[in-house]
Amino acid sequence: MKQYLVAGVDIGGTNTVFGLVDKNGKILLKETVSTEHFPVPEDLVMVVSERIKKAALQFKDHELAGVGIGAPNGNFFKGTIEFAPNLKWEGVIPLAQLFSDRLKIKAKLTNDANAAAIGEMIFGGAKGMKDFIFITLGTGLGSGIVVNGEMVYGHDSFAGEIGHVIMFPDGRQCGCGRKGCLETYCSATGIKRTFSDLQMSHHMKTDLRGLVADAKYIHEKALAGDKDAIEAFNYTGEILGLALANSVAYTSPEAIFLFGGLALAGDFIFKPTRTSFENHLLHIYRNKIKILPSQLKENDAALLGAASLIWKELK
Amino acid sequence: MKQYLVAGVDIGGTNTVFGLVDKNGKILLKETVSTEHFPVPEDLVMVVSERIKKAALQFKDHELAGVGIGAPNGNFFKGTIEFAPNLKWEGVIPLAQLFSDRLKIKAKLTNDANAAAIGEMIFGGAKGMKDFIFITLGTGLGSGIVVNGEMVYGHDSFAGEIGHVIMFPDGRQCGCGRKGCLETYCSATGIKRTFSDLQMSHHMKTDLRGLVADAKYIHEKALAGDKDAIEAFNYTGEILGLALANSVAYTSPEAIFLFGGLALAGDFIFKPTRTSFENHLLHIYRNKIKILPSQLKENDAALLGAASLIWKELK
Repeated sequence: MKQYLVAGVDIGGTNTVFGLVDKNGKILLKETVSTEHFPVPEDLVMVVSERIKKAALQFKDHELAGVGIGAPNGNFFKGTIEFAPNLKWEGVIPLAQLFSDRLKIKAKLTNDANAAAIGEMIFGGAKGMKDFIFITLGTGLGSGIVVNGEMVYGHDSFAGEIGHVIMFPDGRQCGCGRKGCLETYCSATGIKRTFSDLQMSHHMKTDLRGLVADAKYIHEKALAGDKDAIEAFNYTGEILGLALANSVAYTSPEAIFLFGGLALAGDFIFKPTRTSFENHLLHIYRNKIKILPSQLKENDAALLGAASLIWKELK
Repeated sequence: MKQYLVAGVDIGGTNTVFGLVDKNGKILLKETVSTEHFPVPEDLVMVVSERIKKAALQFKDHELAGVGIGAPNGNFFKGTIEFAPNLKWEGVIPLAQLFSDRLKIKAKLTNDANAAAIGEMIFGGAKGMKDFIFITLGTGLGSGIVVNGEMVYGHDSFAGEIGHVIMFPDGRQCGCGRKGCLETYCSATGIKRTFSDLQMSHHMKTDLRGLVADAKYIHEKALAGDKDAIEAFNYTGEILGLALANSVAYTSPEAIFLFGGLALAGDFIFKPTRTSFENHLLHIYRNKIKILPSQLKENDAALLGAASLIWKELK
């Protein structure tokens, strides 16, 4: 009996990762090309498509059913990348159409956080869940919201920007031009800033190690018992818990998944987040919503997420 | 040709309004009974059902297709009212089942704000819209969120409690036991408190008229040029605009509808709300989301909303 295979493509500012994924989420091929080496998107599509085609031929009893694409500023409805600041390609790029034309198969595209959320639903910890929120704690805070088994895209495909909910109107300056956005506190960048602030206030000096720290370094310091590092996690969790409690008032999910570097700090981030979450929840929601670590592997999530855009329709 | 009719029932703490609604949202019957006069819900269901049955017989070419019910603490999935603090009926009441058994027709139940939101979609200003948010500014702040043409219920049917998003963690005491909830600022109760606070701070005394004012009185004062009244609307709109801008980051709606007493104040509330909304929106959302007054008449909304639960499925 013929089985399906699905191609996944994750477009990043530096690299594009692509491959083949089977129905169980097993990655049968994974390759990388430099996005920056292709000033014209058509050329990247050509190179990636040829390699996908060739690889798929090795799986004789399988049919390539489609290609799912995760991309910054991805518009699901139009299949386009729109004015992505981290890509060299300018304007609106009809990337799904380009792949579909090349490979003669169905192509779907969405932004990276949404793709990862669908990956969690099809291959990760949200299997069987119909209502959940997926949060990526990376350089910024990305999110994907699933309601009744469907990704929330909104009228323009740009729903799910929880990282840009304003927590404090006069808070930290955000890269978006506004102040106090959630991601200025709850992200790798946010906790670095918190840690630096704590070091400066406690030691009355700029600690250069603090300023160049990454989330992993702060995690290591916390493991070693460093008070500033532990306090930085507590502060981050306090704000994240409040934001997630507020999020529940919108879509009342069964669970909230945390993904990304910061989520790898385990109890240091989950414990204060859960405590603040329960403290801030409206009573009707208390003690019934789980905050869970993503079950997707850090390195595979983007590719699995992209492929799951197609697997979601096949299953 | 036989046409459909739908019954609507709105259960309130004091009164229950019920009636018959045709496919154009025309109300063919509207009656009221006192909810408090029925210590047992079965008796209310019996009385209301008999009157609905009798009235429906008058419309000979019409078939009664179902009954929609709006109720406080309504659980859509189970068709139940659950522990409603404003009703004398205790515990969990299977109201949809009771009506369905009596009338031998389909019965659907949801909370009043969700019902009104569906009413806006079927008979009001949201006709043809697939993504919108509906806000009722009454004693509290109720909300219904529609995504891709479907009401957001969440995993437990209790989604859409935007009135209980915490705006300021150390803010005003809310009836829910927490502090700083949106509805403590943006509701009839909220603006009354703001107006009283302004009067006390400006006149160094408690102005009794301020303390007993309702939203309509504050509107009249604003029309007469009263500075405290106008400032109260501006303050309310500033916070409401921020909350709505944050809401957009979740579901990216095409429009947000405001309903209820406070929304009747027109520009006094819409102007500061829209200004604050645009100021606080993430750039990708700017200048494309409408904040609109509900097109449902204040007195008909509850009945139309309840009936629209069934009309939504028939259309």
